[in-house]
Amino acid sequence: MINIGIFGATGYTGVELMRWLGRHNEARVVFASSETSAGQRLSDVIPCAYDTPLVKSDDAPLGDADVVFSCLPHGASAELCARVVQAGRRAIDFSADFRLREAAVYTRWYQHQHPHPELLSQAVYGLPELYRARIAEAELVANPGCYPTSVILGALPLLRQNALANPIIIADSKSGVSGAGRKLTQSTHFVEVNENLAPYNIGHTHRHVPEIEQVLNDARAKMDSTSGLKDSGIVEPDMQSAIVASQQARTSLLSPITVLFNPQLLPITRGMLSMLYFQLTPGAMAQDWQALFTEYYKDEPFVHILPKGQIATIAHVAHSNNCAISVHQQEGALAGTLVVVSCIDNLVKGASGQALQCMNLMFGLDESTGLR
Amino acid sequence: MINIGIFGATGYTGVELMRWLGRHNEARVVFASSETSAGQRLSDVIPCAYDTPLVKSDDAPLGDADVVFSCLPHGASAELCARVVQAGRRAIDFSADFRLREAAVYTRWYQHQHPHPELLSQAVYGLPELYRARIAEAELVANPGCYPTSVILGALPLLRQNALANPIIIADSKSGVSGAGRKLTQSTHFVEVNENLAPYNIGHTHRHVPEIEQVLNDARAKMDSTSGLKDSGIVEPDMQSAIVASQQARTSLLSPITVLFNPQLLPITRGMLSMLYFQLTPGAMAQDWQALFTEYYKDEPFVHILPKGQIATIAHVAHSNNCAISVHQQEGALAGTLVVVSCIDNLVKGASGQALQCMNLMFGLDESTGLR
Amino acid sequence: MINIGIFGATGYTGVELMRWLGRHNEARVVFASSETSAGQRLSDVIPCAYDTPLVKSDDAPLGDADVVFSCLPHGASAELCARVVQAGRRAIDFSADFRLREAAVYTRWYQHQHPHPELLSQAVYGLPELYRARIAEAELVANPGCYPTSVILGALPLLRQNALANPIIIADSKSGVSGAGRKLTQSTHFVEVNENLAPYNIGHTHRHVPEIEQVLNDARAKMDSTSGLKDSGIVEPDMQSAIVASQQARTSLLSPITVLFNPQLLPITRGMLSMLYFQLTPGAMAQDWQALFTEYYKDEPFVHILPKGQIATIAHVAHSNNCAISVHQQEGALAGTLVVVSCIDNLVKGASGQALQCMNLMFGLDESTGLR
Amino acid sequence: MINIGIFGATGYTGVELMRWLGRHNEARVVFASSETSAGQRLSDVIPCAYDTPLVKSDDAPLGDADVVFSCLPHGASAELCARVVQAGRRAIDFSADFRLREAAVYTRWYQHQHPHPELLSQAVYGLPELYRARIAEAELVANPGCYPTSVILGALPLLRQNALANPIIIADSKSGVSGAGRKLTQSTHFVEVNENLAPYNIGHTHRHVPEIEQVLNDARAKMDSTSGLKDSGIVEPDMQSAIVASQQARTSLLSPITVLFNPQLLPITRGMLSMLYFQLTPGAMAQDWQALFTEYYKDEPFVHILPKGQIATIAHVAHSNNCAISVHQQEGALAGTLVVVSCIDNLVKGASGQALQCMNLMFGLDESTGLR
Repeated sequence: MINIGIFGATGYTGVELMRWLGRHNEARVVFASSETSAGQRLSDVIPCAYDTPLVKSDDAPLGDADVVFSCLPHGASAELCARVVQAGRRAIDFSADFRLREAAVYTRWYQHQHPHPELLSQAVYGLPELYRARIAEAELVANPGCYPTSVILGALPLLRQNALANPIIIADSKSGVSGAGRKLTQSTHFVEVNENLAPYNIGHTHRHVPEIEQVLNDARAKMDSTSGLKDSGIVEPDMQSAIVASQQARTSLLSPITVLFNPQLLPITRGMLSMLYFQLTPGAMAQDWQALFTEYYKDEPFVHILPKGQIATIAHVAHSNNCAISVHQQEGALAGTLVVVSCIDNLVKGASGQALQCMNLMFGLDESTGLR
Repeated sequence: MINIGIFGATGYTGVELMRWLGRHNEARVVFASSETSAGQRLSDVIPCAYDTPLVKSDDAPLGDADVVFSCLPHGASAELCARVVQAGRRAIDFSADFRLREAAVYTRWYQHQHPHPELLSQAVYGLPELYRARIAEAELVANPGCYPTSVILGALPLLRQNALANPIIIADSKSGVSGAGRKLTQSTHFVEVNENLAPYNIGHTHRHVPEIEQVLNDARAKMDSTSGLKDSGIVEPDMQSAIVASQQARTSLLSPITVLFNPQLLPITRGMLSMLYFQLTPGAMAQDWQALFTEYYKDEPFVHILPKGQIATIAHVAHSNNCAISVHQQEGALAGTLVVVSCIDNLVKGASGQALQCMNLMFGLDESTGLR
Repeated sequence: MINIGIFGATGYTGVELMRWLGRHNEARVVFASSETSAGQRLSDVIPCAYDTPLVKSDDAPLGDADVVFSCLPHGASAELCARVVQAGRRAIDFSADFRLREAAVYTRWYQHQHPHPELLSQAVYGLPELYRARIAEAELVANPGCYPTSVILGALPLLRQNALANPIIIADSKSGVSGAGRKLTQSTHFVEVNENLAPYNIGHTHRHVPEIEQVLNDARAKMDSTSGLKDSGIVEPDMQSAIVASQQARTSLLSPITVLFNPQLLPITRGMLSMLYFQLTPGAMAQDWQALFTEYYKDEPFVHILPKGQIATIAHVAHSNNCAISVHQQEGALAGTLVVVSCIDNLVKGASGQALQCMNLMFGLDESTGLR
Repeated sequence: MINIGIFGATGYTGVELMRWLGRHNEARVVFASSETSAGQRLSDVIPCAYDTPLVKSDDAPLGDADVVFSCLPHGASAELCARVVQAGRRAIDFSADFRLREAAVYTRWYQHQHPHPELLSQAVYGLPELYRARIAEAELVANPGCYPTSVILGALPLLRQNALANPIIIADSKSGVSGAGRKLTQSTHFVEVNENLAPYNIGHTHRHVPEIEQVLNDARAKMDSTSGLKDSGIVEPDMQSAIVASQQARTSLLSPITVLFNPQLLPITRGMLSMLYFQLTPGAMAQDWQALFTEYYKDEPFVHILPKGQIATIAHVAHSNNCAISVHQQEGALAGTLVVVSCIDNLVKGASGQALQCMNLMFGLDESTGLR
């Protein structure tokens, strides 16, 4: 039985985590914290069936937990995760604090100094489809952002050599409102969201941009160095035994992948759809991308490539840990543009479900435990 | 051309007022105020097509206006309306500040002293269907609340003598979120409202309760004493002219009407439906209430009694100044209970449209000008 | 391992059943039927993660199933349930076909002859809170309607002797659209539902009326004969060992309970809220109904009486098998009216979850298996 | 007073047309037809305040109308529009029947023979921003599709010489459900739409594709031949007096504009947002597109270029005839991609409002009459 602590349990990801933990037979909650609602029960704060008592984070019995999930906002989260790691416990951080590898990049995008840059090198980006082996060993997992999860999973198979004619990937991404959290802002007032579609942070300005680009460029470098995906659907860092120097050289000459990322707020509670546009090389145009995606993800428990002719929608994945992807190859004048639709539930595969998937890996359980 | 000032233009009722004024050929906006957004234009603050500049209320050129609409919250609104009246201009107040006749009742429900109790006696409740003649003369109109408008219009025809076996009226009322205003509260966060129905202030606790009861008891007394509403534009079919002293005596002995009022928040932007339950006397059970309602409202431009067999829905009235009412007489064991459905758009007949209807009356225009 | 067959798997209750079965460790699906989509997989027909093959009901391997869930419409469902029972398998019917005890009542409300009246006497109404012991033994369970579940659970504690001053119960019930099924009708078109609230079948005309009244009158008779709920929160028929003749006589003299039932369509996918109004006797007014409800349901795994001061909302129960109830006792002039709010998820406690709860009872499992 | 007939008045565009006509002081409805609801009133068929009687189209008094709006589906609409034109009346067709210039293209996309190819040459595409002068003279106006209106208005200023590096325009377009009409389909069932975002007809398969491409290529040719937009924001065909042969030659050598068009169904009733992606030439990257768009549309009454820094949303245009456009120029690695957001209300500027705008032009009224 894994003993679990939760910091910031009264947000949407915290409550979602409680829901999934309720169906996980090998884990139990030993504490749940909330600075503003300590002393109350979770069901007093948010309509739900969990009457878990809430404590202040300072009063949380860290020692009772095997792993702590931090659902706190960035900045605050790094502080508490550091405390968890110092206490010899493992941490899964839902915030962005440990996702970016370089403190300077963090500072540029989050506009404050990173509170614990010394931990950045040991944090593992919690996307099992890319970093499964490292997650299993990690003390500190940076749970991926929701937008990055949907974009990265929809882009990975295209990072093989010579597929992209242009390093710019367009991600036209639409998200439900729970992704913006429970904090009050005018932009999440019911009347502002309802009967509307509102783009925001257009272009290259959303904080998920550096995260997406870091992971995609990292993945491309890895694929390049391992001759793409010829041998395995999933490339692990520890599989890089035969790095060919000339390949490294070639990779370094490539322009880095840049994402033109246009997030848009949908009038729904949960779910996210990224419509992705890639420009293919002539060689790539001749390939069957439906087949390549299917092959790439064939062993992944939570990535579903839809059959040819079906289109991924949010309804395919709502309330599940699945990522549904459909691949739409074009013909004629449009043959150079590949369209990929990638859908997740932002609260599950985009947050709490993915965190549990990581936890399962970290504790040697079947990766899908409690996630079906 | 009527010159109009607006206090608090950046709320939902303010913007709705702008929309309707845009179609009103005999009125123009001479100023619009906002304490927090002065210096900006309305379209900078809320997505709309009105680039009206916003001023602080202290800088508003009161003297340029023939009438000022105050869309401010209670308390603040009374202060500014008093200033308008003192400046010899007419005021239409959207807040509750001048709706209740007695300052003590106001203090009990709003929990602060009334800032201008001396104005209460001259304020007219702006429901044309009851107080048309007095509105035309008014210097200060208290624009009715949205819930009260829907409940009162659905109940008026039943206030005639000997119709109600029980002075308790049940109003099961559901409202769109714009009725709660643009202020940020957890209960209007998109995620809390969406896919939910949330009752609140159950029983006898919502601030619209004293307003509804005051108007219904007032209307009953009038009907009783005049056997109809001779002075106010609503005439009873039987039109007796003589006030019988014994009837007056009888009225004073009646139990006051009490409303069991259960408001519920709907996941929609605008619109309101009150499902009303009345207990009829045996005599009233024998009457045809479909016909009585139709007759009662036959000259009203904005109250529509639906044909027998149709049921009023919010879709009947959205974006219009209409109140749609359907009457559902029961049989057998249920013959003693009359069901009435009363629907309005809370931003129009429940706020800005009704205010314009009052303004039309105050300035001698056709009551429907700009409201079709 | 319980082997399960599903008739009519492509409707909303069918897919919801699949979802919950996916988390039930002691059951597996052995067939799923669809007349119109046989030959396809479930995920081809409705966006979901279940690629269960669909067969025609005639081709379904009935013999492989221990229990069959029929999610078919009334009429068709009775035919197939009869076939299941004849094959010596147990059946849980989601339709209304076996809910009403008398074929004549069925014919009056459903306007066709009952296809298998001979089975009516052996069918058990699948509401565990009332008929737990009989469900465990049943060969044929009539799964309750969604509206009846919410109304009955909110009313049961009030059926004790001398509580109700009036046999009329007002149920102002609002439902999400999935309750209307997947069939195409103008009234479930997105544009007709969205931004609307639409009452329908007002008064005493909805087909759930006879079902609610049958169960409430049945429950009242039982409570009466067992001196109310003195001994246990849940009155089982087999506990009626000491029926006092005089009590029976008294019961038969009481007016039957009649429900004034006003269903209304909410612009949400799932969830149901019944606002219930009861008229109390003077004796009952003096009692603490918060405490009585809490006591009544204290051993029920899926009925939650909210703490005093909280109000039940649909958000409390969405995607769960819970029924959340809040009790709102009034004072002063309104003391004679008790307000109860009763919420369920119409697809779970109102359909598929309740059916699994019955299945668990029928096969000797813990009633909550797979339902947390 | 313009006398108006409406064919197919019970659809969403028909009812929307009634709404706007109610505020148009110089037009009145002389007949409204419905094949399925003839004999009833409009308010019997759809919840609204219009009790206009409905007749069969064969019984419509064509001779009483100055202009007839046809809100019928394609195919049927051409038949009736032909009858109107033969009767010497003017017609505005909401269907696609007269939008495509070539009957063969129509047949390929609509998969039946065009019923009246002889009328194609005289039909004018009813987009005032492109064809204002011709609309004024037209006997038969093809009212543009909603998607085409949003895409074309967002693209027009970019069609000048040497702006686009690539003839492929990506249009990621999201629409409210009323755009799909009132006909019953599984994809417009409330439960399928709600809490979902569903792409459909991805790539180059939606019937609006040939319409968008025809108009954009036509507009590009015109701009080219008139030296772009140097002299006026709006290029009229009759201004093409000095067509330089070498320009024509150059134009004909250009690859035709191709649209990669990905429509997606939003869970809202009305409104449409097209996110457009253009690839700029190096020369165009150096220009200020915010200023160019503002200049291009400076005299247009219904196209609003938002100030720099604001982003167009559906809320900007709902229930109005406006098209709100925001221009988002990128820097650095993304400088070659221009993002334009273009929003309309699909029922107003995308249908009924645009039709009234055309009618105003056809009858010599101010273009904005009744549309504010």
